[in-house]
Amino acid sequence: MEAISSQTIEEYLTARAREVNEGLESLVPSETVPPQTLHRAMRYSLMAGGKRLRPVLVITAGEALGVGLRDLMPAACAIEMIHTYSLIHDDLPAMDDDDLRRGRPTCHKAFGEAIAILAGDALLTQAFNVLSSHAPAGNIGRQIRVIREVAIAAGTVDALIGGQVADIENERQLVDPSTLEYIHRSKTGALIRASVIVGGIIAGASEEQLATLGWYGEKIGLAFQVADDILDVTSTSEAMGKTPGKDQAAQKATYPAVHGLEASRVRASELVEEAVDTAKQLGAPAFRLQQIARFIVARRS
Amino acid sequence: MEAISSQTIEEYLTARAREVNEGLESLVPSETVPPQTLHRAMRYSLMAGGKRLRPVLVITAGEALGVGLRDLMPAACAIEMIHTYSLIHDDLPAMDDDDLRRGRPTCHKAFGEAIAILAGDALLTQAFNVLSSHAPAGNIGRQIRVIREVAIAAGTVDALIGGQVADIENERQLVDPSTLEYIHRSKTGALIRASVIVGGIIAGASEEQLATLGWYGEKIGLAFQVADDILDVTSTSEAMGKTPGKDQAAQKATYPAVHGLEASRVRASELVEEAVDTAKQLGAPAFRLQQIARFIVARRS
Repeated sequence: MEAISSQTIEEYLTARAREVNEGLESLVPSETVPPQTLHRAMRYSLMAGGKRLRPVLVITAGEALGVGLRDLMPAACAIEMIHTYSLIHDDLPAMDDDDLRRGRPTCHKAFGEAIAILAGDALLTQAFNVLSSHAPAGNIGRQIRVIREVAIAAGTVDALIGGQVADIENERQLVDPSTLEYIHRSKTGALIRASVIVGGIIAGASEEQLATLGWYGEKIGLAFQVADDILDVTSTSEAMGKTPGKDQAAQKATYPAVHGLEASRVRASELVEEAVDTAKQLGAPAFRLQQIARFIVARRS
Repeated sequence: MEAISSQTIEEYLTARAREVNEGLESLVPSETVPPQTLHRAMRYSLMAGGKRLRPVLVITAGEALGVGLRDLMPAACAIEMIHTYSLIHDDLPAMDDDDLRRGRPTCHKAFGEAIAILAGDALLTQAFNVLSSHAPAGNIGRQIRVIREVAIAAGTVDALIGGQVADIENERQLVDPSTLEYIHRSKTGALIRASVIVGGIIAGASEEQLATLGWYGEKIGLAFQVADDILDVTSTSEAMGKTPGKDQAAQKATYPAVHGLEASRVRASELVEEAVDTAKQLGAPAFRLQQIARFIVARRS
């Protein structure tokens, strides 16, 4: 812990992301197992890098409340699989029709549409396989609760899929602020919030602590998406690893489009401060949650 | 039970399918809940009818081993949701490109590709929401085991998605008998087998009983697909509710294509007799499992 505590937040996130990558490696079928093409496609998208924000949040929240990495890793990886499946499907020609993701061709560009659809399906399914195969700390009550939390966040009501539907349905029109908030809270926010809560559930957090984690997760989830919208306007393709300006071109519902760039920056900062204040209620061991909140809007990609 | 026992198998299946339809109605979000379009698409495909073979197998196997309908219904419906998601995605233009399913336009024909992809994703996710929200007989150990069984059967290794990949990859070429067997066992067989086993798990079946149920499920799963292949050659569009001759036209891997029609009929009958013999080991209360096995190859659509 001493060594870990002295790391900068960037070092901490990099180290944790590396651990998550190792976890992911071991939790999806090898490319040598049939159907090889599909397992290759799953791994292609899953192992393409990325910040691993969601699994790192599971781990950071869980450790802050006293549970070890081994009990957190399966759920952390399952959530990253769900995140990756959602990216693969969002990128499809029938949806956002994106060619570039995490700095390389999107899954359907590399493997064709049929395999990309199935690779997404398979990552979603594998997530629940992993969740149901590892009882954190041998506690199946917590395990069931984790599965339910993840299934709800990945679902349709104020959740991942619902947000994607609203995003698609509101393309090419200026949305009102409340629709924008709904899209962001559902499409990005729900799974980020669930990540934090899942860490807490595995750690056996009290209902009060879970509520606090939920608040924190909600704030950083929204802050993350606002920051993402800002980056889409201000960043370059190289830094982003995906096509920037794409949201603007598609007239996607974004914070800068609805509120302007400056107001978006202010809002992101406010959310971060609220998140930091919320994390403080969890005490000193949760200092990494404070740092992650700040990092989310300070990042360049 | 007296009244139920005196029903013919057709009456029994119809009555059970009706109960399943009521269960499904109550286990997916209403069309009035946002995102409405998506919930409408989910219900459009889910409530389009069909034999409800998989959920009826969950219920029949579970009841044969002494557990009640109320404890079986959520898992039964969850498995039907997974079956429906797989049909929606299989029908997509990038996959089998089918226009007709269960007697009506396929989901993407009615709602567009984007919503069809998301409706499939949502049904898969909702299945795990349902499974994690209802502990059969309050027993969370059995609940976890059910979730794992379903996740594995819906997965990639000798399972649903793996079978679909192999099916696609072997289109427009004559497959060898072992590849055909792999496709059928995985694509159709795995979820049918899991349905029977899940009924047993919920009923608290012994490991020996679960093995027997697994054997039974494997036999009828394969018999069902062979019968389906035969129907594709011999039936009409009206009776099938989907485009017949489609497998032939796409040069899909089918039993009649590989073994000929007569040998396929013989194989289907053999499998049914093996399944009936296996079901007999479960004793008199499992007589409906025997009848279902016979029904599977006798059906006309």
